[in-house]
Amino acid sequence: MARAMAQAARRASRDLLLSRPDARIAALVRVAELLRASSADIVRANAIDVANAVAQGKNQAFIDRLVLDEPRIDAMAQSVNEVACLPEVLGTPLSETVRPNGLRVRRVRVPIGVVMMVYESRPNVTIEAASLCLKAGNAVILRGGREAFESNSALARIFRQALVEAGLPESATQLVQTADRAVIGQLLLQHESIDLAIPRGGEALIRYVTENARIPVVQHYKGVCHMFLDEGCDPEEASRLVHNAKMQRPGVCNALECLLVHRAEVQRVLVPLAKSLIQAGCELRGCPVTHSLVPGVSTATEADWGTEFLDRILAVKVVNDLDEAMAHIARYGSGHTEAIITPNAAHADRFRQGVDAACVVVNASTRFHDGGELGLGAEIGIATSRLHWRGAMGLESLTTMKWIIDGTGQTRL
Amino acid sequence: MARAMAQAARRASRDLLLSRPDARIAALVRVAELLRASSADIVRANAIDVANAVAQGKNQAFIDRLVLDEPRIDAMAQSVNEVACLPEVLGTPLSETVRPNGLRVRRVRVPIGVVMMVYESRPNVTIEAASLCLKAGNAVILRGGREAFESNSALARIFRQALVEAGLPESATQLVQTADRAVIGQLLLQHESIDLAIPRGGEALIRYVTENARIPVVQHYKGVCHMFLDEGCDPEEASRLVHNAKMQRPGVCNALECLLVHRAEVQRVLVPLAKSLIQAGCELRGCPVTHSLVPGVSTATEADWGTEFLDRILAVKVVNDLDEAMAHIARYGSGHTEAIITPNAAHADRFRQGVDAACVVVNASTRFHDGGELGLGAEIGIATSRLHWRGAMGLESLTTMKWIIDGTGQTRL
Repeated sequence: MARAMAQAARRASRDLLLSRPDARIAALVRVAELLRASSADIVRANAIDVANAVAQGKNQAFIDRLVLDEPRIDAMAQSVNEVACLPEVLGTPLSETVRPNGLRVRRVRVPIGVVMMVYESRPNVTIEAASLCLKAGNAVILRGGREAFESNSALARIFRQALVEAGLPESATQLVQTADRAVIGQLLLQHESIDLAIPRGGEALIRYVTENARIPVVQHYKGVCHMFLDEGCDPEEASRLVHNAKMQRPGVCNALECLLVHRAEVQRVLVPLAKSLIQAGCELRGCPVTHSLVPGVSTATEADWGTEFLDRILAVKVVNDLDEAMAHIARYGSGHTEAIITPNAAHADRFRQGVDAACVVVNASTRFHDGGELGLGAEIGIATSRLHWRGAMGLESLTTMKWIIDGTGQTRL
Repeated sequence: MARAMAQAARRASRDLLLSRPDARIAALVRVAELLRASSADIVRANAIDVANAVAQGKNQAFIDRLVLDEPRIDAMAQSVNEVACLPEVLGTPLSETVRPNGLRVRRVRVPIGVVMMVYESRPNVTIEAASLCLKAGNAVILRGGREAFESNSALARIFRQALVEAGLPESATQLVQTADRAVIGQLLLQHESIDLAIPRGGEALIRYVTENARIPVVQHYKGVCHMFLDEGCDPEEASRLVHNAKMQRPGVCNALECLLVHRAEVQRVLVPLAKSLIQAGCELRGCPVTHSLVPGVSTATEADWGTEFLDRILAVKVVNDLDEAMAHIARYGSGHTEAIITPNAAHADRFRQGVDAACVVVNASTRFHDGGELGLGAEIGIATSRLHWRGAMGLESLTTMKWIIDGTGQTRL
C-alpha cells in the first residue's frame, strides 16, 4: 500500500508541475467553501473521534486539540483562503545572469515534489499542511494521529473533491487510511517517490521518523531558548521582555527556558525581575549567585540547563560577560531561538553573528519566532534542522530550485 | 577518533562564525603561496602514492587523476586564489521586511557549520573542497581515497599552516589520518557535530554514505541526460548540439546519453545526424524506427533506456510528440540535465516547467550544466538530490540561513 500511495503521489506531483496557479487557487477556495458547507458532517465525524478518545482516557489538552466545532471549522476555512491568497512563489527567479556566450542562466523556485507529513491528532494540521503543499505545487501524503482518523477522513474527502472539481489530480492529497503504524515505516523507505518527510509532534515521533527514513527529514525538535540581559540593559524593558517570553504561553517551543544575566546587572535588573517572576507564579532554578540573592529561588542542577520545561519554570544564571553567555548558549541551546537584550551595538552584532541558531533576536521577545509574526502568512512548523530551511517554515520552505539555461544554439568549447 | 575530530570541527566552526572575511581570504591567499613554495615536497609525497598505486595495478585513468606535477600544483594554487576572490556570500540578506510592530526581520546567509567530504583518490578535490568550505565559513573533515594518502597529508599540512598564520582555528580543516574505513562509518553517525556529508565518487560510495549516515547527505548520482529534437528544429544546429553534448567529453555526468527525436523530423534531422554520429565513432542503440532507417544502428534493449554509458554510446528513440518525450524523461531520466531543441516557444515553456530535473536546457548543449560555465567560479559537485540545493554546487550551496529579528523592546500580544 505504501508503495502504491507513493507512486500515485509522484504521478500527481508531475501533473502539478504543469498545473496553472489559478487552478490551485480555485481548488483552495473551493476547499474553504466545502468546509463551511459540510461543517455538520465534519462535526459528526469528529464526535466519533472525540468519544473514542474520551473512552481511552485521553487528557483534556489532548481532547482540546482534537475537537472541531463550527467556529474552528470556520477558522480552518479562513486559513485556507489566506493560503490561497498568498503571493505565488513558483517560478520566482532566485538568481539570473547572462553569460559571456549569451546563455541566460536562471535558478527558479519549483515544487519539492512529494511531501509526507506525519503529525499528531490535530485535525487542523491536516488542512494547513494540505493547503500549503498544494499552493506550493507539491503532492502530499498525510498521516495524522490515529485518534483523529474520522475527522481527517472527512477533511481529506473535501480536499480531494475540490481537487477534482478544479481539474487537478485527486492523488495530490492522500491520507493514510489505516491505523497500522507499519505503513509509516514503509512510506519512509520510498525514496524514489517521496522527497521530504516532515514530522510534527513529540520528540519520540521525530526520532522515529529520522531514524527510519531513507528520505530527507526536516526536524522540529525542542526549543531551549535563552535570553541574555547584557550590561546596561533597561530594567523595565528587560522585565517586560522576560515576562512576555516566559509567561505569555509557557507551553510552546519559542517560550523562554533559561535567563542569562550579566553580573554587573544582578542588583539593578536580576533581583527585582526574579521577585516579580516568582510573584507571577514562575518557579526559578538559579545558579548559586541567584539562589543566594533572591529568596525562593531553588538551586539549579546540571539537568536544568538545556531543559525545555514547557511550563512556568525558568533556569537563571549570572555570567561574567557576553562571551560566557554565548558559550552557555552554544553548550546548552537547541539552536531554536536565542535572544539578547542590550543597548550595546557591538555586542548585538557579536551575538547575531556568533550565535548558531535558527533565529537570533535582539531586543525583542523570543515569542516572535513564529510564521505569522514573521510575516509568512502561514506556517508548517519551525525547523531545528539546518539544511534546506531553518526556523519558521512558510510557503517558500516547501519549494526547491532548478537551473534553467536558455540558449540560441551554444556549444561548449 | 571520529568523535574527537567531529567535536574539534564543531568548535572550529563556532570560531569561524566570528572570524572576519579578511582572515579567511588571507588564509586562502597564503595556501596558494605555500602550494607554489612547497611544490617539490608535494611532488615527492605524491610520488609515493603513485608508486603504490602502480604497484597495486591501478589503471591509467586512475593514475592520471592521482598524479601531481608542477603545472597541476600551479593550477591548484590559482584555483585557491580564485576562490579567495569570489564575492563574500555570508551575511547576505535573503529576505528583509519591517513588520507593522516595527520589528526588522531578515533571513541571512550563514555557514552550514561542519561539512564532511568523502571522495576518491583525487588530490585536487582536497584543495577545492577545503578552499570552498573555508571561504563559506565552514569547518571541513576531508576523507579522500586511501591511494592519495601521502599527497593529501602534504596538502592538508599546508592548509593548516595557513590557517594558523591567519589566526584561524587549525581544526577548521581536518584530514582523516587513517586508511581504516570504519572511521567513515563512525563519522557519519556524529549528527551532533557534523551537519552535512558530501560524497563524491562512484555510485557505490554514494550509496554507502547515504545508507550509513545519520546526518544529511547531498548526493551526486549519475547523469542520464536526454536531448529532445522537436518538430521544426534546425538540422544543422541540432547536429552541432548533439555532437557537442555526446562527443566532446563522453565520460562526464552532463554528457548526453539518450536522444529523443520528434517523428516528423526523422528524415530531415535524425537520419543524417545518426550517420554523422556513427562516422564520428559513436555507437547508436535505437528504437525500431531508428534501427530500420539507419544502417549500423543496433536495436536498443530496455536496459539501454536510463543507462549512463559514460562512453561513445547513444540511445536513440523516435517519439510522437513533446509529451511522449517528457514522459520518457520522467521515466528514465536521473533528474540531472535535460535539454530540448525547439523553435517553438510554447513547447520550450512546457518543457522548462514540466521536466523535473536539476537543470533544464533550451537550445544549448547539456554540457553547460557545470559550475564554471554557469558562473559559480568554483564547483564542489553537481547535486542530484532535491533538498537544500540542486545541480551545480558553488559557494552558496555551502551556506544555510538564519533568521535575525531586530527590535526595540517589542513583546508579543
